[in-house]
Amino acid sequence: MATAAFQNLLQVGTKIVGVGRNYVAHAKELGNAVPKEPVLFLKPTSSYLEAGGTIEIPHPLESLHHEVELAVVISKRARDVPQSTAMDYVGGYALALDMTAREIQASAKAAGLPWTIAKGQDTFTPISSVLPKASVLDPDNLELWLKVDEEIRQKGSTKDMIFKIPYLISHISSFMTLFEGDVILTGTPEGVGPVKAGQKITAGITDLLDVNFNVEKRKKQ
Amino acid sequence: MATAAFQNLLQVGTKIVGVGRNYVAHAKELGNAVPKEPVLFLKPTSSYLEAGGTIEIPHPLESLHHEVELAVVISKRARDVPQSTAMDYVGGYALALDMTAREIQASAKAAGLPWTIAKGQDTFTPISSVLPKASVLDPDNLELWLKVDEEIRQKGSTKDMIFKIPYLISHISSFMTLFEGDVILTGTPEGVGPVKAGQKITAGITDLLDVNFNVEKRKKQ
Ligand SMILES: [Mg+2]
Ligand SMILES: [Mg+2]
Ligand SMILES: [Mg+2]
Repeated sequence: MATAAFQNLLQVGTKIVGVGRNYVAHAKELGNAVPKEPVLFLKPTSSYLEAGGTIEIPHPLESLHHEVELAVVISKRARDVPQSTAMDYVGGYALALDMTAREIQASAKAAGLPWTIAKGQDTFTPISSVLPKASVLDPDNLELWLKVDEEIRQKGSTKDMIFKIPYLISHISSFMTLFEGDVILTGTPEGVGPVKAGQKITAGITDLLDVNFNVEKRKKQ
Repeated sequence: MATAAFQNLLQVGTKIVGVGRNYVAHAKELGNAVPKEPVLFLKPTSSYLEAGGTIEIPHPLESLHHEVELAVVISKRARDVPQSTAMDYVGGYALALDMTAREIQASAKAAGLPWTIAKGQDTFTPISSVLPKASVLDPDNLELWLKVDEEIRQKGSTKDMIFKIPYLISHISSFMTLFEGDVILTGTPEGVGPVKAGQKITAGITDLLDVNFNVEKRKKQ
């Protein structure tokens, strides 16, 4: 597939499946138990933000938390896929931020309510262009990093993911059909924290790509 | 718009926004407080099931709960829409079932986790064809009903919705852009309960349409 086709994957996709607590050190930093099964949640594709764009902090929040994550882009319909063939359904990879309104998420958790508003607002899924699968030799050994202004906040390796990519595809596709362009956000390493209006986020996959995003307060139209 | 175009709305949609606890009597039957703001969650479009289809109960569950709901189908991009013009963004209506694995939802609530697996599995959103907006004179006064085999389980009126359609569109679009074909599930009246393999669900909007679905245990492919 040509590069244009890979970019298109994000346009045709209809869902983003987020995985929570997939790195031991991050689960612990938020005081959560290490899960026996992946914690899954949905983000709408309306939350995508292209590289170079501006992350919007909605009123009355003062900050959002950054979570740098490896995004796996699905290439074709996947249902009940075994781990042994799961990688055949991967079209490419991207770097994504799973922006999270942590105060809203904390209230939702305490009340037993969904994370939709905490995770699903417009601009809450900044994402890079898609790297074709062939250009990523070892997705289980990628260094992800994130800086706020000049300060390094997150640096971790996908080798520390509790549930690896084939397991995630197999597990998720046992519950719901994945389609071409659907994205799995594979979880974040430790170091999540707040970003405020006026700050700049730079993030990347070492040796492969980097992206940057501005952060501003949202103005209603 | 012709009828074919309306059917197409469901194909182009990229998200289903569910509203929880939007009828006082239903909130109370599950022991929940009546909310000050709508409870929102996402279902993936992969969970749609066409009228006449078979709802699948995934292993090891013995039943799913039925929730009969009015589905509002969005006709065009909506962001920060005021209540006063919100109805301009409605393309039509459908009858949907928000099938719910209640035991999984109860565990998720207790653990502060998302409802994704409880609400988002394949066949968990059975839905009728789309009624063009012009054929639904008063969406705030529709009788919704649901039978399991010959037993009436749910009968309620959209006049008892706590948050009405214009409010829901305005509220949801203040968080996330709604696109053509996106669907809002407006909540269920009281009477939710289990259905098991071998039973049949019939449901409808009085005087407008009715649908039926079989219920079986899911067989892995
Ligand atoms: Mg995350
Ligand atoms: Mg979706
Ligand atoms: Mg419901």
